[in-house]
Amino acid sequence: MYQTSPQLDKNNRLRHLLTIDGLTREHIVEILDKAEGFFIPKSGQIIQTDTLQGKTIANLFFEPSTRTRSTFQLAAQNLSASVLNLNISHSSTSKGESLRDTVLNLQAMQCQLFVIRHGSSGAAHFVAQQVNPFVAVINAGDGCHAHPTQALLDMFTIRKHRGDFQKLRVAIVGDILHSRVARSQIHALQLMRAGEIRAIGPKTLLPAHLEQLGVKVFHDLSQGLQGVDVIMMLRLQTERMQKGLLPKGNSYYRLYGLTSETLAMANPNALIIHPGPVNRGVEIQSDIADSPNAVILDQVTNGIAIRMAVMSLLMENRLS
Amino acid sequence: MYQTSPQLDKNNRLRHLLTIDGLTREHIVEILDKAEGFFIPKSGQIIQTDTLQGKTIANLFFEPSTRTRSTFQLAAQNLSASVLNLNISHSSTSKGESLRDTVLNLQAMQCQLFVIRHGSSGAAHFVAQQVNPFVAVINAGDGCHAHPTQALLDMFTIRKHRGDFQKLRVAIVGDILHSRVARSQIHALQLMRAGEIRAIGPKTLLPAHLEQLGVKVFHDLSQGLQGVDVIMMLRLQTERMQKGLLPKGNSYYRLYGLTSETLAMANPNALIIHPGPVNRGVEIQSDIADSPNAVILDQVTNGIAIRMAVMSLLMENRLS
Amino acid sequence: MYQTSPQLDKNNRLRHLLTIDGLTREHIVEILDKAEGFFIPKSGQIIQTDTLQGKTIANLFFEPSTRTRSTFQLAAQNLSASVLNLNISHSSTSKGESLRDTVLNLQAMQCQLFVIRHGSSGAAHFVAQQVNPFVAVINAGDGCHAHPTQALLDMFTIRKHRGDFQKLRVAIVGDILHSRVARSQIHALQLMRAGEIRAIGPKTLLPAHLEQLGVKVFHDLSQGLQGVDVIMMLRLQTERMQKGLLPKGNSYYRLYGLTSETLAMANPNALIIHPGPVNRGVEIQSDIADSPNAVILDQVTNGIAIRMAVMSLLMENRLS
Repeated sequence: MYQTSPQLDKNNRLRHLLTIDGLTREHIVEILDKAEGFFIPKSGQIIQTDTLQGKTIANLFFEPSTRTRSTFQLAAQNLSASVLNLNISHSSTSKGESLRDTVLNLQAMQCQLFVIRHGSSGAAHFVAQQVNPFVAVINAGDGCHAHPTQALLDMFTIRKHRGDFQKLRVAIVGDILHSRVARSQIHALQLMRAGEIRAIGPKTLLPAHLEQLGVKVFHDLSQGLQGVDVIMMLRLQTERMQKGLLPKGNSYYRLYGLTSETLAMANPNALIIHPGPVNRGVEIQSDIADSPNAVILDQVTNGIAIRMAVMSLLMENRLS
Repeated sequence: MYQTSPQLDKNNRLRHLLTIDGLTREHIVEILDKAEGFFIPKSGQIIQTDTLQGKTIANLFFEPSTRTRSTFQLAAQNLSASVLNLNISHSSTSKGESLRDTVLNLQAMQCQLFVIRHGSSGAAHFVAQQVNPFVAVINAGDGCHAHPTQALLDMFTIRKHRGDFQKLRVAIVGDILHSRVARSQIHALQLMRAGEIRAIGPKTLLPAHLEQLGVKVFHDLSQGLQGVDVIMMLRLQTERMQKGLLPKGNSYYRLYGLTSETLAMANPNALIIHPGPVNRGVEIQSDIADSPNAVILDQVTNGIAIRMAVMSLLMENRLS
Repeated sequence: MYQTSPQLDKNNRLRHLLTIDGLTREHIVEILDKAEGFFIPKSGQIIQTDTLQGKTIANLFFEPSTRTRSTFQLAAQNLSASVLNLNISHSSTSKGESLRDTVLNLQAMQCQLFVIRHGSSGAAHFVAQQVNPFVAVINAGDGCHAHPTQALLDMFTIRKHRGDFQKLRVAIVGDILHSRVARSQIHALQLMRAGEIRAIGPKTLLPAHLEQLGVKVFHDLSQGLQGVDVIMMLRLQTERMQKGLLPKGNSYYRLYGLTSETLAMANPNALIIHPGPVNRGVEIQSDIADSPNAVILDQVTNGIAIRMAVMSLLMENRLS
């Protein structure tokens, strides 16, 4: 028997956005193209539409996040949706209610789209299983599992600045093992047929079996960056340092920080990508983060358009 | 001299909604009918209107509440009102300002409708006495006193699923003494002329003089549920357990929890109502909360429409 | 070389609002007149417009504030702008990101107007230096430096109730040394050509060189209030008492509290102004705060209109 993905409908259209894994190249290109349509040509300004007028979007954040929550809120407001922000910490207001009950209640309040960030891998999948056919779910980061809108905005940014993925050598640098961002990026780069995908990091922080996925593994930053066209830096989770998984203080920077010296190994004009917020002097030299090839702020802008694209696509697919 | 109610104007129209006590059957039916008009027939979807376009609603929550606050926010947004959410804890931002000063300031900011939840009984009445003739007040729960919109959505739900109240035996189960929900429900059921109203709970948690209100009192759950058509469960406030007012742990469940066994005493098809969030396995058996006769999520949807009805009614009455 | 102000463009129009210092009388009158236009004549109601439809305003509050943040939010909503509220405490969600990075990120999210409150003097100037030509900045209070919209709403209130500034003796009472409100008020009163400006407070809490600014200094409240037409009370920051800068408990009230006795020294009908929230019985006698000449709540209403005026003016100047 053929088991359909929980995020696709029977016509293989996107029903929810839970993970990049299992999508096709066409799904991704459809979203990137739709996002492109939200920009005013040349000005770089994003338009506002009434596409989701009368719809209500619930931002369900079980992990604290100002930045990502803001991008989803702004994307929703750009589409004229009503927004309900819910920052749910364990201590506070949930009164011990289960995730399922929380979601069913919000559904009963007629929220049609849930954006969910949660510390547990699989939380967004779980929510998608609970909702009725009129509700769609977007995974805004679940544990160490996936962060699909981040990977999509990264693909949008690479396509915009460098075009054809097949010509590109792309390196992902940092704690790939625990990174939901990296996991989604690798799947997306594969679907976009990147010429070569590299993973660079300490042995303890690279997942097993990366090579079986076609990813080349490096433990030395200078070696890994050699001839690379796109450098995707990961944010260092400093709490991992405290747990002893990462070398403390600036020995990480010495080994895996992107500096003028290590950057020199990459192709001139190598594009530098970072999910933000940047830890200056921890994973990247401060002036490199501000250099013209570092498109970190452009990623933020693209993230608004990508989230608008995903939201409107899911609402369209739901209705038809 | 005839003393008019603080929540009615001189023509006996609703000026504020502070409590069910003192309303007439006509007031309640007017609100239920108005709420019904916000549903798209058959689909169960709630419409959005521009009824309160240009009006500003302040959600003044002095007790933490995600759920009730969200329903008021969504109701306001469905009517196209501007919303200002204020979560005011004692510790934080109020800078020691009195409730009166807070309210007069928000009135000066031209908020026309206050939704207020407060730990002290009478807080909403107090606020209603402070405001000018252009401002209306909705009590979203004050201490152990009243929670009128909850009672109204319960009446809406019962009317929708069971019709004529006069044929119904209704039981309220739990800590009635401290429950603002129960107090408002009893008044509403009397106004709707329910065939029989029962209160079931331990002696320590039933108020005196219930029988003088025409309510039949039971201390045994099985006896109290016999032949009942509607079961209105209350949420167990676990903090009361800690104060020794309730039997600890699951001895409460054994005595007053709604289980398959105790439910069997009621009429088949007895409607089960609960204000949420449900404590599964504390006041109700988990699968009963999910059974077809438990309309707990439908109550949530109805609550949006009821709050839209109250908001728009108060704004209409204010203007004319 | 002529050094232009960081808040004016090359045509001397308001580009940002950072401080009253360096503005002209014409800048202030333009804002007051614009604010007046947002009132419905006679009713005192503020209109709602679609002036900022499609614009996004970020409320960046690094100090806790319910009241001021609410007034900016309501002003923005009255102009149909999208609002993003960000309450950024040091502990929480900023993940150690610098102020510059936070602002550049919000700019990348296409927020066009930043309202910023910050504990450090100069923070708003700093932000104004970072943003691109399409973004404007409003200082909502920076350290002990400036709070220009407060001074503007005070000028609006004085003009409305007393008309011609040249005929007025105005006294500012309290901890002027640490007050961003007082600093902005003095500049504004000078620009409006107030007949006489007085500063009243203990020696330890008056800045040096006030007299060089043309301000008359008094350490005795009764003397200072003699013949005064407008009394501008400052809010007592009780944390300054704890640091020993102010006499503890009600000895401050005895010396510098506005009471019936001290008020009797001023002109009959002296207008009483206070930035709120009022500490009743600390800096002002409670019933005086509620008396007809105390226009404290009218200031709040005027503050909404002033903020609407500044927001729309900055957005106009930016576009043309």
